Amino acid sequence: MSEQSWPSAISEIGPNLIRLRGYPVEELMGTLGFAEAIHLALLGELPDRATATILDAIFVSSLDHGTTPPSVLAARTVASTGAPLGSAVAAGFLAISKYHGGAIEDCMKTLEHAIAHAEKKNSTFVDAAATVVDAFKAKGQRISGFGHRLHTKDPRTTRLLALSDELGKSGHGVKMARAFVEVLAKSGTPLPLNVDGAIAAVLLDLKVPHTLANAFFMIARLPGLVAQAHEEQTRHKPMRTIDPKVATYDGPPLRHST
Amino acid sequence: MSEQSWPSAISEIGPNLIRLRGYPVEELMGTLGFAEAIHLALLGELPDRATATILDAIFVSSLDHGTTPPSVLAARTVASTGAPLGSAVAAGFLAISKYHGGAIEDCMKTLEHAIAHAEKKNSTFVDAAATVVDAFKAKGQRISGFGHRLHTKDPRTTRLLALSDELGKSGHGVKMARAFVEVLAKSGTPLPLNVDGAIAAVLLDLKVPHTLANAFFMIARLPGLVAQAHEEQTRHKPMRTIDPKVATYDGPPLRHST
Amino acid sequence: MSEQSWPSAISEIGPNLIRLRGYPVEELMGTLGFAEAIHLALLGELPDRATATILDAIFVSSLDHGTTPPSVLAARTVASTGAPLGSAVAAGFLAISKYHGGAIEDCMKTLEHAIAHAEKKNSTFVDAAATVVDAFKAKGQRISGFGHRLHTKDPRTTRLLALSDELGKSGHGVKMARAFVEVLAKSGTPLPLNVDGAIAAVLLDLKVPHTLANAFFMIARLPGLVAQAHEEQTRHKPMRTIDPKVATYDGPPLRHST
Amino acid sequence: MSEQSWPSAISEIGPNLIRLRGYPVEELMGTLGFAEAIHLALLGELPDRATATILDAIFVSSLDHGTTPPSVLAARTVASTGAPLGSAVAAGFLAISKYHGGAIEDCMKTLEHAIAHAEKKNSTFVDAAATVVDAFKAKGQRISGFGHRLHTKDPRTTRLLALSDELGKSGHGVKMARAFVEVLAKSGTPLPLNVDGAIAAVLLDLKVPHTLANAFFMIARLPGLVAQAHEEQTRHKPMRTIDPKVATYDGPPLRHST
Repeated sequence: MSEQSWPSAISEIGPNLIRLRGYPVEELMGTLGFAEAIHLALLGELPDRATATILDAIFVSSLDHGTTPPSVLAARTVASTGAPLGSAVAAGFLAISKYHGGAIEDCMKTLEHAIAHAEKKNSTFVDAAATVVDAFKAKGQRISGFGHRLHTKDPRTTRLLALSDELGKSGHGVKMARAFVEVLAKSGTPLPLNVDGAIAAVLLDLKVPHTLANAFFMIARLPGLVAQAHEEQTRHKPMRTIDPKVATYDGPPLRHST
Repeated sequence: MSEQSWPSAISEIGPNLIRLRGYPVEELMGTLGFAEAIHLALLGELPDRATATILDAIFVSSLDHGTTPPSVLAARTVASTGAPLGSAVAAGFLAISKYHGGAIEDCMKTLEHAIAHAEKKNSTFVDAAATVVDAFKAKGQRISGFGHRLHTKDPRTTRLLALSDELGKSGHGVKMARAFVEVLAKSGTPLPLNVDGAIAAVLLDLKVPHTLANAFFMIARLPGLVAQAHEEQTRHKPMRTIDPKVATYDGPPLRHST
Repeated sequence: MSEQSWPSAISEIGPNLIRLRGYPVEELMGTLGFAEAIHLALLGELPDRATATILDAIFVSSLDHGTTPPSVLAARTVASTGAPLGSAVAAGFLAISKYHGGAIEDCMKTLEHAIAHAEKKNSTFVDAAATVVDAFKAKGQRISGFGHRLHTKDPRTTRLLALSDELGKSGHGVKMARAFVEVLAKSGTPLPLNVDGAIAAVLLDLKVPHTLANAFFMIARLPGLVAQAHEEQTRHKPMRTIDPKVATYDGPPLRHST
Repeated sequence: MSEQSWPSAISEIGPNLIRLRGYPVEELMGTLGFAEAIHLALLGELPDRATATILDAIFVSSLDHGTTPPSVLAARTVASTGAPLGSAVAAGFLAISKYHGGAIEDCMKTLEHAIAHAEKKNSTFVDAAATVVDAFKAKGQRISGFGHRLHTKDPRTTRLLALSDELGKSGHGVKMARAFVEVLAKSGTPLPLNVDGAIAAVLLDLKVPHTLANAFFMIARLPGLVAQAHEEQTRHKPMRTIDPKVATYDGPPLRHST
């Protein structure tokens, strides 16, 4: 390695040779699901089957949430000016920030902090959660991952935790998230675990570092942003002023995959 | 619907209700792979099993291509200034443009044009391809999807077409791409089908509109951009001037999934 | 110059040496206005006094246009999520595209085309304008730079052309723009020259290439986007859904600089 | 004001009416320099003549700094892929972050903190600077605004402070910046005030809030990013791998404006 060169451990590229984390990419094609390849790219190793199923469930859960999120308004607004799809989704990504999408990372940090507290103090998870909840209340701060303006019992949360339990992947993260719910239920302001909080708990148990939490959300949401921006350019006239609150769903009625 | 309201057919959202193209999202979680959900979001319907396998293969094939693509240089450069991951990948997306990533859409249009020509003239695909190749040569233009600066026989191309054949999904798109290869082989400048061309042919046979071609590439590449930007922020010191040509791979050596 | 090196003619940088297009930057500081320095950076030479005054007028004219442009909605939406100002204005810039801000470049091309037509055919500017207007009508296309949804007699247009006349800078561009107005007035659909059209005409007479037209608009508009995004973050609560149509001005009442 | 409406104090827009902070924009055109209009837009009031001259000097000082800054590499890389200028400069802006451009805001905060310390403790500025410098050293942190990898005596710094002195605008900010230089000179590691530090000191004395510091840098730098991206698209071939370290200046030789 010359003194100028710098290392990268992601892909090895040469003439007619493309390897992802050591695996020839053509051997992965046709055998690996996209979520498994994402795990390999981001964490360096192939996931086991249960992990892959949970990752697929996370990506599916967060793929889209209708027209109201700010990332969708930014993406549609840019798409409406005649910009290419790539510019529209880039603008959408810039709106995935502190108050939108950032809850997963914040909740992971809170859960990690509470777990470390329980281990250090040799206390129960509920006691540790109570201590952390009190600290947040004392500072007048919201705890990311709990409560939702619209969903009081988010079906994605229920499903994701059940899946993690069924597949034997629930660990300290999920246990601590449930401890928070228990503590909050007894407090004056009961707050449900929302989908960001459920994803945070499950990612923690899958050993995903919190520095990648926003990335998981962005990967999940990109197809939704593409669908929204593409619909804007193919169904609506350019340069309209988009009011996200008055969109009406006119897609297929309720249906079930068998 | 009030006169202000506007329609969207992607997601239906209500209290404790999230439906993607009509399907309750919690019913899709745990049963659907990410690639299947992407197909549902972008094209409106669930794919059959063979289509899902091919989509997974496309996403896996294009997930990353090392440190030299301009999208990676843009993403790493922004990551190196201490910006959040979302800003880094947004910058990467802005580099997916006419000369980078755009080849899939251009090649789809060329194949569609040649197929329409064959149908209109009632000619063979090889004759139609020859006419189109001549027209490109007369204008001194390159045909997107053919030739590669590095890969003379791209293993991803071979694998993707084989998979499409095996699964019975190869149609006019793949047939026409092969007609172009045949015509180019006989011309003075034989050019192989590259991975963009193979994806273009296969997406055509999966009934994906070319307006979504760039989007499929962006969805495939996002986890790669995340991995590159995250590696930049976790392995390298900030504000370095990144020379993409001198990166050296130091990840796992050749290995195989069983 | 080694074979790897590549040339740039903008700035020369060395230890304690910063030169812009050959001028030591410290000699320009305190003597040059920002608009003059912009001219030097983009076009390579210092402008004369009249040109500088017109450029200042262009930048002032397009600095802001309230809360309704899509670039403002994109910038405010991103700002509202807690993103940094740079991300907010980047999203705003992505909305300056074909249908927003692009009119200046399109109008410059139309005026150039008509001027070339008049010169080639040795016809009057009004005859050339009539030919071009007829061609647009035949194709059912709008002519960029004429007509405005809100302003029937835009005070910025009047002022900019008067200034260009007064300072002796009106040439073929302004003359042709007026020819278009004359032709359109006689047609069934009279359309006023809008501010984009006036800027296009004046930039043409200042020898600015149309490839830089969007850039002049972006440079003018950036402080407006900053003001809008900064106001969003300092006056409004985060994560609000922004409806640009219902903003109400509550700044200083009408006043005049003396 | 209906309950939905929200206030904005920047521009008042109506049919044939465009007012910036209360002033009819057509009255500002031809009389106001761009820097004065920027001050009006961002701070709400017209600047006095001396302030306008200093703002012009700040914008001129930071307009461009050659090919090596990461914002230029990001902008040129995106421009090289055939993307529109707006996408290129948006990518450049995303690179203006913590480690690039952020020094002005950080330095303003440090100077404000030291000034507040001096006032609270009724100490000299040099004593307050010494206390703050010691605190930074104890934490092993660099002080933004001091030191430069290339310029040991930056001519922009010298000129900007001289101008501020001459025009009678130097106040607590400039005084405290000089106190830091004095303290650092006596310490083991003398560090000069760099151009970011000089701008920070001067902006403080012009009553610009530090939340707008990055914005002033972005406004100054945009024309430079445009010039770099435009040069990339007009002088260089597309999709080249850009090595910023080997660019060679080939513009006009040293010259002086009279």
